[in-house]
Amino acid sequence: MQTPVQSNPASRLTLLRAAMRAAQIDAYIVPSADPHLSEYLPAHWQGRAWLSGFTGSVGTLVVTQDDAGVWTDGRYWEQAESELAGSGIALKKIPSGASVLFIDWLGQTMQAGQTVAVDGAVLGLANARLLQQALAQGVTLRTDTDLLHDVWMERPALPAAAIFEHGAPYPALPRSDKLAALRAAMAVHGASHHVISTLDDIAYLFNLRGADVNYNPVFLAHALVGPQRTTLFVADGKLPSDLRATLEQQGVDVAGYGTAAAALAALPDTATLLLDPRRITYGTRQAVPAGVRVIEAINPTTLAKSRKTDSEAAHVRAAMEQDGAALCEFFSWLDATLADPQRAPLTEIGVDERLTAARARRTGFVSPSFGTIAGFNAHGAIMHYHAHAETAATIEGNGLLLIDSGGQYLGGTTDITRVVPVGAITAQHKRDFTLVLRSMIALSRAQFPRGLKSPMLDAIARAPLWAEGIDFGHGTGHGVGFFLNVHEGPQSISQSAMPEPQTAMEPGMITSVEPGIYRPGQWGIRIENLVLNVPAEPAQFGEFLKFETLTLCPIDTRCIERSLLRDDEAAWLNDYHATVRARLAPHLAAPADAPALAWLEQRTGAI
Amino acid sequence: MQTPVQSNPASRLTLLRAAMRAAQIDAYIVPSADPHLSEYLPAHWQGRAWLSGFTGSVGTLVVTQDDAGVWTDGRYWEQAESELAGSGIALKKIPSGASVLFIDWLGQTMQAGQTVAVDGAVLGLANARLLQQALAQGVTLRTDTDLLHDVWMERPALPAAAIFEHGAPYPALPRSDKLAALRAAMAVHGASHHVISTLDDIAYLFNLRGADVNYNPVFLAHALVGPQRTTLFVADGKLPSDLRATLEQQGVDVAGYGTAAAALAALPDTATLLLDPRRITYGTRQAVPAGVRVIEAINPTTLAKSRKTDSEAAHVRAAMEQDGAALCEFFSWLDATLADPQRAPLTEIGVDERLTAARARRTGFVSPSFGTIAGFNAHGAIMHYHAHAETAATIEGNGLLLIDSGGQYLGGTTDITRVVPVGAITAQHKRDFTLVLRSMIALSRAQFPRGLKSPMLDAIARAPLWAEGIDFGHGTGHGVGFFLNVHEGPQSISQSAMPEPQTAMEPGMITSVEPGIYRPGQWGIRIENLVLNVPAEPAQFGEFLKFETLTLCPIDTRCIERSLLRDDEAAWLNDYHATVRARLAPHLAAPADAPALAWLEQRTGAI
Repeated sequence: MQTPVQSNPASRLTLLRAAMRAAQIDAYIVPSADPHLSEYLPAHWQGRAWLSGFTGSVGTLVVTQDDAGVWTDGRYWEQAESELAGSGIALKKIPSGASVLFIDWLGQTMQAGQTVAVDGAVLGLANARLLQQALAQGVTLRTDTDLLHDVWMERPALPAAAIFEHGAPYPALPRSDKLAALRAAMAVHGASHHVISTLDDIAYLFNLRGADVNYNPVFLAHALVGPQRTTLFVADGKLPSDLRATLEQQGVDVAGYGTAAAALAALPDTATLLLDPRRITYGTRQAVPAGVRVIEAINPTTLAKSRKTDSEAAHVRAAMEQDGAALCEFFSWLDATLADPQRAPLTEIGVDERLTAARARRTGFVSPSFGTIAGFNAHGAIMHYHAHAETAATIEGNGLLLIDSGGQYLGGTTDITRVVPVGAITAQHKRDFTLVLRSMIALSRAQFPRGLKSPMLDAIARAPLWAEGIDFGHGTGHGVGFFLNVHEGPQSISQSAMPEPQTAMEPGMITSVEPGIYRPGQWGIRIENLVLNVPAEPAQFGEFLKFETLTLCPIDTRCIERSLLRDDEAAWLNDYHATVRARLAPHLAAPADAPALAWLEQRTGAI
Repeated sequence: MQTPVQSNPASRLTLLRAAMRAAQIDAYIVPSADPHLSEYLPAHWQGRAWLSGFTGSVGTLVVTQDDAGVWTDGRYWEQAESELAGSGIALKKIPSGASVLFIDWLGQTMQAGQTVAVDGAVLGLANARLLQQALAQGVTLRTDTDLLHDVWMERPALPAAAIFEHGAPYPALPRSDKLAALRAAMAVHGASHHVISTLDDIAYLFNLRGADVNYNPVFLAHALVGPQRTTLFVADGKLPSDLRATLEQQGVDVAGYGTAAAALAALPDTATLLLDPRRITYGTRQAVPAGVRVIEAINPTTLAKSRKTDSEAAHVRAAMEQDGAALCEFFSWLDATLADPQRAPLTEIGVDERLTAARARRTGFVSPSFGTIAGFNAHGAIMHYHAHAETAATIEGNGLLLIDSGGQYLGGTTDITRVVPVGAITAQHKRDFTLVLRSMIALSRAQFPRGLKSPMLDAIARAPLWAEGIDFGHGTGHGVGFFLNVHEGPQSISQSAMPEPQTAMEPGMITSVEPGIYRPGQWGIRIENLVLNVPAEPAQFGEFLKFETLTLCPIDTRCIERSLLRDDEAAWLNDYHATVRARLAPHLAAPADAPALAWLEQRTGAI
């Protein structure tokens, strides 16, 4: 038999449908997920992108013999529409605030006698339950099959990057202390064992880092914490032998990556297992013996790592100074380049390269924290745009250039969006920019009761835009890790997040504030800083928190229409710029940094 | 056997505990509920108040042999603490945003082998399910017993007020159209039948009103809507015979109040029954035969009645003018009285009587829409205060008088809170008042996307208070009916409401905006208007709504510290006062209204 051509999504879909017919599967789900429910997937698990051509980081593909669709949210609609064109796969829009609509669709579409299948190893337990509930009586759900195995001939192997210690001075607590704290949290639940599959939880718990996925310094692993010993399941060869020896001395046994399910299956009936239904897969849950008592709760490490200690916050502040200095170097170069009539053409890719190079020169830099979004004019309106060689715009003429980027530093993770003017900009550009700035300021200076459910803060940012009949199709803020994932929970300033207890705002959490305005085909504006939850003045009405803005980089005042800013808002901006100048200038003291320092001083002038 | 003394909560508790021992019940729950899950309970179902002494409208009593507690939220803590004193019953505080904590408590406290009991006829189905889930394995839940029947000797009978037609011109649609619309909504769910127990849904659907409970013009009934005929279950003698004949002509059969469960039990297995798990009791659900297919969804009438038609909104505007004129009459009298050194003593009860009398003279007035809260100084800080003869304060000296009141008019339901100065007030009074006003203005002029989940608006009102380290322990806004319940859903501007799809903001909804500041032992301030969802200017980013303020009554500018208001906020207030003056003056044209008119003109002067 000849290997069929798999050159495009349409032909790949044909192959998948043939495999579905052979296996008597009527609908096949390809989630955007791996066994760790990661946001950034190793290539091995990027089957949805391979099959559909849609490369955005969030989206679920469902294929039947007659129909195929990718469900994704507003951030990705523009991108998906363009990438799915000609594939025969429909874009299914998930409106802001809605949830897993592909499940509703399957519930309505599938008839008794039909079979829905999905690889249980990459299906979140919470979604599996919703799916089981939604499917009509008589519809079979199979989770034991990975059809990608049959149709994806050149499927990439699992990543094999080495694991390294996130050593002194960075971690606030040694891993023995973190394990002790975790066991104390397990004891509150009456749990003797705890299984963890999420890679950021594992990296945090063991003070280890890796490079198995782009941008997030994590490594593929599962962990099973028992009353005395802990087992870390990682592929052979990833742990240097000295590190492995240290771990074993400290009560951490190392076992093969593929043996986690077997270890769960071997749990005695006397065990009480804590697991987080949103953070393990259906496959993992199925491995637990029926006799084991299971307690469902959020991973204690997810809460613990979200509350940065004072020492971690101090490292982040230092990393922000490094990042801000790199940004000054980059933006001063960009301004000079744009002003030079003799310059060589500059594309969005050139912007990314130069910015990444500026960061790479800074102390503690490890990697970008996500793929830089440098979008000029219409590309700026594509919320998760990433320039490719064949489509990258050249920065020329007039308009706005949006740059959303970040770095992983040993002392913290950064994420910042700025918009700069190119050539002449219009009053409409300035109006939009100023409205986004007002929105960003409104939330940045908000004060709120400790324990407030973070989604409730969303309206404070949106109110100034809503007042003008404007909204944006993404969350206002996401949690950020400590040299870990650039998107981490449990807090989320978003209407699509439910205000559940675990979303409560607590001191030490780091969150982005990033409102925007997007005019498809014209321009996009987003202004983003990271903020730290810090205690506010003691108040009679209980404990309050406020935000300390961590990000240090000028916000381009050339884009501001001053008459649309209230005086108190302009004062906030002037204070911020004074802080930025004071904190960054010492890092730009070398003679080579003179242009960056001059740029910093110019761009932080009061308005 | 002698009838035991039941003179106080402690002795009633002793009786209940004896009955529990006799029935081998370890924990007994007395919800604050009737078979209709009403907010205002007929005296027959006020067992929690009778047993505990706590008379607030929300609270659940749980009694064991060793322990007893009333769970209630922040609005009632002060009142409960005082009313429960000496009863041996603990106040269990439900923090803002938390839910049914008595269920958690039972889950943690009850041991295998023990029995928890509650009268299933007054236990909401949703709570019953949470209870079943929460109770540890081996704990028995009994729902077939009403211990109050055994211990409450003088239990009041069921109310027997007559039912009357809510006739032309008020209802926007005849009942035949409403029934047709309901059947269309049932068809969308594939339902042949629909059971309704909530009294406001029934009153709305049939264009009938009653007087079985205080303040809400509803009557005790259940309804079962079938494919052709509808059955209304009401007690004999409540429906005038001509009205009954009209109903039967229109396809509405009338049956005895107590026969609803039997009618459900007689449904054929071919029936598909729509029911709302939050709006029927466990007892009602249990009556449905196992063979009947049940579909759970919000009562279609709950959504329909929340979206007032243009004609209903016009009636409400007219009712607001009547209400506003009554308020001018009352407040002008109050000001004159307070200024009179020779006056007789005025108490909080006197305030209530005079205000109710002023309303009673107005066209279309039926009754107060809830018990007036007139709280002077420290009493104003008790959120749901109601003055009683023995404790009512005399209005004298200096301070703030908070008056929260409302009327049921044939053309609408009103609910308004104002605060007036008495004697000299302090800078601190003015600061608090101005902050509450800023909060009220911030939400009143908000614009937001149609379909926004109403709880998300809460932060817009609270942000100005949070900025000063202040918060308040009740929701910011509740839905309001059309000559119906003063508290009606599904929308709710509250952190304790989950932003579920049914809370979406839609045109025609009427909601209160009522932020406050409460300083226990000192004073309370709340400013409350009702607002109507109306379409905003067409916008490029989708459909937006804004609020039309319906309530017409001056906000006392003597309490404002102008320097704390921004100019745009003062402009909003001046515009509002110009509208109030223009709309109310024509209703105060009679010579007898001259003082009220003069007061209106004075109190609506620009600041």
